[in-house]
Amino acid sequence: MFNLYWADESGFPAGDRGAAYGDGLFETIRMCGNRGVLLSRHLARMGRDAGRLGIPIAHTDLRKACTAAVSRYADRFCNKDGESGWVLKLTLTRGEGGRGYQPGSGMRPNLMVSASPMPVAPATFGVAADVSRVPLTVNPLLAGIKSLNRLEQVMAAREITGELYEMIMSDSAGNLVEGTRTNLLLKGPGGWVTPPAKSLAVAGILRQWVLEKLRAKGEVVEERAVSMADVLGAHCQGLYLLNSVIGVVPVRSFAGQDLPADDGLATIFNPLELLE
Amino acid sequence: MFNLYWADESGFPAGDRGAAYGDGLFETIRMCGNRGVLLSRHLARMGRDAGRLGIPIAHTDLRKACTAAVSRYADRFCNKDGESGWVLKLTLTRGEGGRGYQPGSGMRPNLMVSASPMPVAPATFGVAADVSRVPLTVNPLLAGIKSLNRLEQVMAAREITGELYEMIMSDSAGNLVEGTRTNLLLKGPGGWVTPPAKSLAVAGILRQWVLEKLRAKGEVVEERAVSMADVLGAHCQGLYLLNSVIGVVPVRSFAGQDLPADDGLATIFNPLELLE
Repeated sequence: MFNLYWADESGFPAGDRGAAYGDGLFETIRMCGNRGVLLSRHLARMGRDAGRLGIPIAHTDLRKACTAAVSRYADRFCNKDGESGWVLKLTLTRGEGGRGYQPGSGMRPNLMVSASPMPVAPATFGVAADVSRVPLTVNPLLAGIKSLNRLEQVMAAREITGELYEMIMSDSAGNLVEGTRTNLLLKGPGGWVTPPAKSLAVAGILRQWVLEKLRAKGEVVEERAVSMADVLGAHCQGLYLLNSVIGVVPVRSFAGQDLPADDGLATIFNPLELLE
Repeated sequence: MFNLYWADESGFPAGDRGAAYGDGLFETIRMCGNRGVLLSRHLARMGRDAGRLGIPIAHTDLRKACTAAVSRYADRFCNKDGESGWVLKLTLTRGEGGRGYQPGSGMRPNLMVSASPMPVAPATFGVAADVSRVPLTVNPLLAGIKSLNRLEQVMAAREITGELYEMIMSDSAGNLVEGTRTNLLLKGPGGWVTPPAKSLAVAGILRQWVLEKLRAKGEVVEERAVSMADVLGAHCQGLYLLNSVIGVVPVRSFAGQDLPADDGLATIFNPLELLE
């Protein structure tokens, strides 16, 4: 059981714990008409991570909300060529009530559904990124959860200016962990490298899909810390940003230094083949 | 310039960045009729920390919102004895707009004002507290800010059951840092000890006031890490929880062990002397 809110009708009620404490989580899903890219994985992640937070939501309820969202929104984004790419956002909170931080018993979650146009696509030949001055801190208990506590990402995203497409955030040891809205994948002489899931603020749907795809093709993928030297050193064969709405984005310039970049990896992710 | 919302009329609009990312901060202020306990300090902290987040708000605007809140709410909480303790909550967000995490330019902040009854007072002879299983992670850039990113505190507060009044959260080194809604103050043979401000998720208004008061009385106050051994060892002369709405609360039992507790420190904080 949950309360459904449509973002084009109203916001959450004043007592909602999402707005008060960031007590909830969200998914943004790339849609094409009435189907979603890797939709099952998005809904499975939301259900699993809601469970980690102690927010009760049934997978079937999330499915129903998506179906209702498609009925409501899909036609609005259909252009004259019949294409209808759009972004579905689900925001799930613990609901209203409790005493301060302490939740009440038997609270009913609130689910907000919104739709927006696809973001502008990045240049296929690659983008520029830099290192954020905002350090990333990841609570082991909350690692990977796309929760509503995203102030660090907001502060880092404020540094995106000019030609920059993304800021990469580092941990206290100086390792590069992730972008504000993207996970990292590095290509080196020994194969692919990406920071391990337990170190991530948000463990992306596309990151997991790409790792599985690469391994299925027999490629070596190592999950370990990524240093500045790994990216800027002579061995780097490419740095990629991963986001399930945007796709795979090669980085052609990082911290002011040119990187080898091609869109080879981008071709393995064809969103039109992953619609459900 | 800001948009004012009354919590008894509506919530934030659907596009508000507070609900989306916890992109904002809040204050809870103990009120007595039309005056607030340490009101100036609360408003100064909100203004200063809003500045750290890049949210523009004028001190005079916060003052005006308080004045309007008093007109609207103070009488509602006046009981038959003419007492009128209540809690004023100000929630300030960056407002609506931007592209994902990235804020737009010239955004107008949203300020939500709400009022609630005083919480039930803890026993004056002391409360029971325990160590939370939820580790506390503090981003140096956001340290001390009472931001809307409070999921760690929510998760720790879920552990408060039975006779427990508070859970104390530890950093990765195992030092005790703060409670879900309280700062810590320890009395030892050499004087008072409290974790330093830069280590805190929330640097409380009452904590700062008490430190100044103790130093003004010539007492020794040291800001350093507090270990389990500091609290449970034979040298501990008392552990206190500080919260500007609740006051100074002695801990009589910590992690199942009795502590020396008296309400001596509580007597130096008389909220009725600090009304503005």
